[in-house]
Amino acid sequence: MAGHGEQMAGRPVVYLVGAGPGDPELLTLRAARLIAQADWLIHDALIEPAVLELAVRAKRIAAGKRAGRPSARQQEINRQMIVAARSGGVVVRLKGGDPLIFARAREEIDALVAAGIEPVIVPGITAAQAAYAALGEPMTERGDRRSVVLATPQVQQGAVADTEWARPVINAQGGALYMAASVVPRVRATLLALGLSAATPVAWVADASRAGQTAIRSRLGELRAPEGLPSGAPVILLVGLARTGAAPGVAVRVPPLSARQQAADDEQQAQRIERRAEHDA
Amino acid sequence: MAGHGEQMAGRPVVYLVGAGPGDPELLTLRAARLIAQADWLIHDALIEPAVLELAVRAKRIAAGKRAGRPSARQQEINRQMIVAARSGGVVVRLKGGDPLIFARAREEIDALVAAGIEPVIVPGITAAQAAYAALGEPMTERGDRRSVVLATPQVQQGAVADTEWARPVINAQGGALYMAASVVPRVRATLLALGLSAATPVAWVADASRAGQTAIRSRLGELRAPEGLPSGAPVILLVGLARTGAAPGVAVRVPPLSARQQAADDEQQAQRIERRAEHDA
Repeated sequence: MAGHGEQMAGRPVVYLVGAGPGDPELLTLRAARLIAQADWLIHDALIEPAVLELAVRAKRIAAGKRAGRPSARQQEINRQMIVAARSGGVVVRLKGGDPLIFARAREEIDALVAAGIEPVIVPGITAAQAAYAALGEPMTERGDRRSVVLATPQVQQGAVADTEWARPVINAQGGALYMAASVVPRVRATLLALGLSAATPVAWVADASRAGQTAIRSRLGELRAPEGLPSGAPVILLVGLARTGAAPGVAVRVPPLSARQQAADDEQQAQRIERRAEHDA
Repeated sequence: MAGHGEQMAGRPVVYLVGAGPGDPELLTLRAARLIAQADWLIHDALIEPAVLELAVRAKRIAAGKRAGRPSARQQEINRQMIVAARSGGVVVRLKGGDPLIFARAREEIDALVAAGIEPVIVPGITAAQAAYAALGEPMTERGDRRSVVLATPQVQQGAVADTEWARPVINAQGGALYMAASVVPRVRATLLALGLSAATPVAWVADASRAGQTAIRSRLGELRAPEGLPSGAPVILLVGLARTGAAPGVAVRVPPLSARQQAADDEQQAQRIERRAEHDA
């Protein structure tokens, strides 16, 4: 059987799909549909089990990069995508967040194109969006914050630490930092040295959009590594917020939208049944 | 009947929901569900009819800001949200893209909070994500572009033009500019004056994620207003891409994912029916 990809435009297709920030309900309709249709699902670590369970037909391949040499792992992921695409069927490469934001898309896109395979990108909600949403804080404000920066202070293994990532953050008076938790002293020192005020409100948001989402508000001058969070939780550092909160430095559970929404659903369902009963009576 | 919002946590709720960039399939599952459950749908202009049609129960209120005085319109939108929330039922304020990115969320959040109403944010795919996805261009690249900037060169009516929006873009060597089509000479002059190379690849992406999505690639030094696009099409300017394309300055239809996906679905559906028929035979 030839896969649909090969029959569409003469080229097999791999879908690079964003799984969103964690909450399975923040998948796009397209992502959910492609996962359900997938014959092959090559997925990152940290994808929620409830998302993986949507892949009712797929052979699943875990492609987490947390162990082993990163470059070797990447080559293996590329190889698996290419083999799957050539074998026919629907191939979904599922990545946390948005596949184009801090997800090494360049390597995978280039490998696919070199193998004659068409990469089709399906955007996903990125962690920064979920983190700002958790705090109810706009990412931009009219006339005030007319840009938002998504950045990472991480450098490649062995590379000299630099400040390239920090200049846009300074110039935008803030933004969201990915993968910052392991390099806090450098982040704080760099942003202060480049002129961002020590009083700048900052917040760690861990597990944004998930049931246990937690925020730790502080100020740049007192920024410390996030503590008391579940180990392995994805963490975003927001810099330049409107407020610091009542108890800076204290981890505060942010009421998860999921739970609130579930309560709303249950309540609404009960009301509907009630109304229908009244109507039928 | 008291609405579910009032019964949940003692406060009524308004959902500020992102409708995504246009393609109805880029709605999140949560957005689609809330729209379907909504009793009140207060929506921006430029939301696709197919998205609005998901609102099977709702009283729909169009809240486009394209006519009338902006501030008066915003106050009217705020009033409508508050009246709807207090009347009970599920209130969805549906905004194009992500409700926290260039969507005046601050005004609406502040008005709701002042009225004792809880704003609950449901992120959406923002236009920049769809524009990069259309071009298959990563928003960040490991070791190379470790930040991405979303910015707008628009200033408030009557405000003095400034360069605040441009500095993060310069320092990140690019990003995505919203609402730039009407101020092209200023955008070009500002970015050049601040030191971005005239050879920097740029691209307009119009109607990203929609059936007619179109790209016009160029270089910063030759940047002109996008031409030959459907009037009223949402347009994003991407600055600092990996390539300029074969024919700079020419509008090129980007094969829409929707159409490709539809072809794939049809093909796959046909194959399934075939296989089932073989199995049953």
